[in-house]
Order: sequence, then structure tokens, then C-alpha cells
Amino acid sequence: MPLNSIINLMKKQDIDIVFLNDPKNVFYVSSYKSDPHERILAAILFKDAKPLLFVPALEENDARNTAADFDVVSYMDTQDPWTVLATSIKERHSPLSDWSIEKDFLTVERMEALQTNFPTATFEHNISETLQKMRLIKTEHELSFMKEAGQWADEALKIGANTLREGITELEVVAEIEYQLKKRGVAEMSFTTMVLFGENAASPHGVPGDTKLKLNQFVLFDLGTMHEGYASDVTRTLFFGDKPSVHQQELYDLVLAAHDAAMAAVRPGITAGELDATARKIIADAGYGRYFNHRLGHGLGQGVHEYPSIMEGNEMVLTESMCFSIEPGIYIEGDIGVRVEDCGFVSADGFESFTHTPTGIDAYSKLTN
Amino acid sequence: MPLNSIINLMKKQDIDIVFLNDPKNVFYVSSYKSDPHERILAAILFKDAKPLLFVPALEENDARNTAADFDVVSYMDTQDPWTVLATSIKERHSPLSDWSIEKDFLTVERMEALQTNFPTATFEHNISETLQKMRLIKTEHELSFMKEAGQWADEALKIGANTLREGITELEVVAEIEYQLKKRGVAEMSFTTMVLFGENAASPHGVPGDTKLKLNQFVLFDLGTMHEGYASDVTRTLFFGDKPSVHQQELYDLVLAAHDAAMAAVRPGITAGELDATARKIIADAGYGRYFNHRLGHGLGQGVHEYPSIMEGNEMVLTESMCFSIEPGIYIEGDIGVRVEDCGFVSADGFESFTHTPTGIDAYSKLTN
Repeated sequence: MPLNSIINLMKKQDIDIVFLNDPKNVFYVSSYKSDPHERILAAILFKDAKPLLFVPALEENDARNTAADFDVVSYMDTQDPWTVLATSIKERHSPLSDWSIEKDFLTVERMEALQTNFPTATFEHNISETLQKMRLIKTEHELSFMKEAGQWADEALKIGANTLREGITELEVVAEIEYQLKKRGVAEMSFTTMVLFGENAASPHGVPGDTKLKLNQFVLFDLGTMHEGYASDVTRTLFFGDKPSVHQQELYDLVLAAHDAAMAAVRPGITAGELDATARKIIADAGYGRYFNHRLGHGLGQGVHEYPSIMEGNEMVLTESMCFSIEPGIYIEGDIGVRVEDCGFVSADGFESFTHTPTGIDAYSKLTN
Repeated sequence: MPLNSIINLMKKQDIDIVFLNDPKNVFYVSSYKSDPHERILAAILFKDAKPLLFVPALEENDARNTAADFDVVSYMDTQDPWTVLATSIKERHSPLSDWSIEKDFLTVERMEALQTNFPTATFEHNISETLQKMRLIKTEHELSFMKEAGQWADEALKIGANTLREGITELEVVAEIEYQLKKRGVAEMSFTTMVLFGENAASPHGVPGDTKLKLNQFVLFDLGTMHEGYASDVTRTLFFGDKPSVHQQELYDLVLAAHDAAMAAVRPGITAGELDATARKIIADAGYGRYFNHRLGHGLGQGVHEYPSIMEGNEMVLTESMCFSIEPGIYIEGDIGVRVEDCGFVSADGFESFTHTPTGIDAYSKLTN
């Protein structure tokens, strides 16, 4: 259990307090999921006392019903939360000297508030990486949520493919995908759904708009769904038309070869950088290296921007149950954009994908027959 | 122009560098809008040199095309961004001692990265509040975007009302609203659309699900749309049925009275706390004070959580062109939830609303006739 692991670590490293205010970390240790916006939500762990969940008053009941291992303390909007928090912490009768904080999330303002309330404490330790590394290795439970999120992403692609027709706009396709998903109970996408036609897909920040679909164009779908707090992420570039040009076919096959090679290369023991290089070499050897202008993939879990980062220079060794995307692409501005992406996890001897939508330049017909 | 105002302020206060990495602030000073996720995006302003926009390599072209007043510097994922950034800053030949940072946004990790690269600099000044206060007063240009966002929010309520029928689920109503909006080119909501039936509306963190609509229930809609980077936010509680119960009528009228009183009380010179009290007194006098368990409203602009916070104890004086919501509510768990909300701005002598959807217990019939 994450909570116990962290408390054991605190005892070993003689850390008195761990202060977590990243909602993803709070969820991870307490099972309580909330986005408090500018309000403070925090899980405070003690070496020698029961942990505390600190929430806005509005959330007190929800928090109590969820976070069984925590004492819940709440504050009103009209109170100074830091005073309420400091009082509750000081009541714990636990040492309060050495704190560990989320340096990648805690703002300077909040750290100063802690320093003001605990003037003799030190805030040198950084718990961020410990939590990132713990969250990196998914439990069976988490993997089962992500598998289901992956199935819904496949379903979304199928809906999207079946929506395509000449003259439809990108935004209309997005509307249809999200409409059908919501009607079937999928409330939340894991990020803004991308549907881009033709050369629009070459822009790294393309936004679906009122461009109309023409025959013999590529349609790039990049989307994901949330399931029980966990994300999926998939990209397909579908050829809509009769016969792809030589250029379209060449680039598609190249990206797919890079994708397939990377999928096949995953195994416990390979580093993130080596995996990136596997795909990158194929594209670079064909002379398109400079058009593959992003990393091969990113970790996913509660969100789509977690560890491990599958990029050049990252020497992190991939091990079982790490989850990430594999998504090589080629983007030539004003011309064409192709990307093929699946997400999955490292198994005992390879990569098991959460997403299973057909690939290949003929994938469109497979999805719409 | 915000950029010049800040640089003038820097000269006056002898601040050498302002470091902005909140994407909203970057947009505000540079017109360049981007969500870089875990990557760094920053606008760096100098007392005596041309400002710098620091972006991931993928965004370089977009940034150059947008941020005319800035030199654009980019970094690859494989580079250490702090080294690239520090080099670019040091090339400016401007004093580099006294920095002002966004203490409400900058993480401890990023501040430490700055300290490492600029070991003799100080990072005591906080620019957050200055920017919040500048962004508080909207230009005509910004107000025009927010008016249009408000019109779309009204439209969304109309769509929602016309979707209601016995047996439909909350999530199906959400699906229909967002589908119709996207088909008409409105790509982005300003937050997760809320549609809650009956007692579900009493939960402050209600999430639209598979609850089916019954006759003689309230339906609470809370939604907003984005237009050119600016948000709207509106809530209506529509009575779906023949005849409201005495209890439903009483609570609705009470909330509406509080809403109307607050709308009428707005004028330049009133404080945020006084405005909150105007509405709260009406609900409290009727004996429901403890069921109005949140502030009266919040500022809005690029997002729905900006200054001014319309809450007890906030002595901020409201002045012309400040934008915020007015949204009293009564929530009785397991029973009923009612909220009426409009958003708008302080005019020369009152409040001008961005949203104009009918209120009253008969609003449903007005929206569906």
C-alpha cells in the first residue's frame, strides 16, 4: 500500500512530515480524488501519527467517506487555511522538524506559508521523485482500469472512423466521438480530443476547427478516455480515400515500421533512451529524422504526462508494469502529418498494449466495414 | 498595454527581471497562448532589454508568429532547458540581480533551478498579485470576448432545456449540449459541464452520471464556454414538471431573491465582502444560512478562478470592468440543491451581465417554447 510504503520510508530516512498537495498524489495515498482549483487540498503524513487529509469544508463529507486511513480536517473559505492546518498538525504530538515536500508541485507561496507557520522546520527533502517512481509501477488493479480506458479509446476511434465523410469538419468529428462516448457513460476524455485533416496534422499544436475533409487525405485522431481516474491515449492516422499517393504510403509505412519496431523492442531491462532510439533510427535512416521532432512516448496513469519519459538520453531502465505510450510521427509543415500511437505496459517479456485498433494504411476500411 | 505597464513598474521598483511561467500570464503579456504541460513556457521581462519568450522547440514557429514584441528562444526535449534559458538571459547584458517571480505559480523545483543558475540573484519580489490585479480590470476587447462567451453559455442552457425528457440521464444531457455546441464551432467548455437532477444537485461535487430524470424535479445546469481564451459561467436550476412543491418554490424564490439583490447591489465602490453579505443576509434571514455553504462568486477572465473573490471578509473594492459571477445557492443533502448564477462586469453604475437566460421557477417553459 502506497501509504505504508511512504511511512516506512519516512522512518528509515528520519523524515517527520510528508506534505502532499498534488491532487494526483493525494488520490494515490488516500483514494480521495478531487480537484480543488485554487483552494488547498493536502495529505499530510506523519512518521508517528495518523495521517491527515486537509480539505475545503464543502468536501468534508466526501473525504470522510473515502479516505478511511485518514483523519479529515476541513476549513471554511472565510478561514485562513494555513492557520487551521498548522493547528491540526501541531496537535499531532509528532516531531515536526524535517519535512519532505513535492518540489515539482508546491508553489513558492505555499512553501513560504509553511515556513511562516513552522519557522524552525526544514523543507529540504523532495518527495516528488519518490512518488513519481512509486506511481510508475502500476498494480493489477490500476492496470485493469487502464485496460478498460484503452478499450474505450479503441471504441472512440471506431466511432470517429465511422463519422468520416467528405465535407465534414474536424470539430464535427470530435463532437460525434464525444457525444457517442458520453451517451455510453464515458464522461471524461483524458485530454482535448484531436482530429486533424491533411496538412493540419503537421502542426504540433493543431486544434480541430472548421476544415472540411477531402478525399484522399489523412485524418489524424489523437484521443484518450478516463476510467476510474486512469487515462488511455491512442493515435491513428487513417487514410480516407481510394488510393494513397506514393508519398503518403511511404511516410505511413515508415512511421508504422518505427512504431512496430519499438513495440517489439520493449522488455524489462531496456532503457527509455534505447527504446526511443529503436524507433528514431528507422525514421532517421530513411532521411526523415528532423521531421520526428518529439520524444517517442510518455508515461501514463492518472494523467498522460507521467514517468517514464521515452526520450533520448533517459537512462531509466524499464521494468514490469510501467505504462507508457509509443508514438513515432513525421510532420512536414504545409504538407503532411502522420503518427501511430498505442499505450500499454511492460510485461514479463515484452509490451502489452491497452489499445488494439488496427494499423496499416487500410485501417480505415477495417474500422468501417 | 500590459507589457509596457509591467516594464514601467520594474523601472520604478528597480526590479531587473520578471519571470512568468503561468501560461495565463504568458498569454496576457505576449498574446501567445499555449499549455506546455510539464515542459517550461516562460515570458522573461527585462528592465533594460527586449523581452524573451522561452518555448519548447515544437512551439517555436507558433510563438514567433504571435508574440511580436518578444525574442523567441526555444529548447529541444533533449536539452536542459534551464541551461539554455540561463545562457539566453545572460546574453541580454541587463542587470540580473533582483528578480520578481510568480509565487502563486512557480514551483519550488523551478525556483531552485533559477537559484542554481543565478546564484547571486535574489528572488524576493512577488509579481503574482500585480498581474492578478492588472488582469482584474478587463479591456473593451476582453469584455467583448466575454460577452460572446456569455451568449454561448445562454445558448447551451437553451439546448440543455430542450433536451430534457423523463428518463434521460444527466450524462446524456451533457452529451447533447456539448455536441450541439461543437457542431456550431464552440470547441471548448470553460470547465466540466454539470447537469444534476433532484437531490444530486445538493452535493457540492456532484458529477453527472446515469441518474434518470423524473417529473417534478429540479435540474441544475452549471456550465460555461470559452471564446478567444475567455470564459463564461452560468447556472440555472430549471423546474421540470407540472407544479413545484411549496418547498421547491420557497427555496427557489429565496435563492433568486438573493441573486437579484446581489445583481442590483453591484456598483463601483462596494466591496466584495459587502456584496457577498447582501445575498447571504437574505438566505440567512430565512433560516437557510448554513445551507449556503460557499462564497457568492468568483472572478473570471481567462479562467473561472480569478480575482475578485466575492466572499465574506474580502475588502477589495469593486471597480469598473472587474468581471465575476454571482451565484447564491442552497444545498440540503439528500433533498434538494438550487443555485442561480450569472456572470458579468461592473459598469459605471451597476452590473452588466454577460448571460441573459430567463430566471424564475417557470424558466423551463420560457426556454422550450
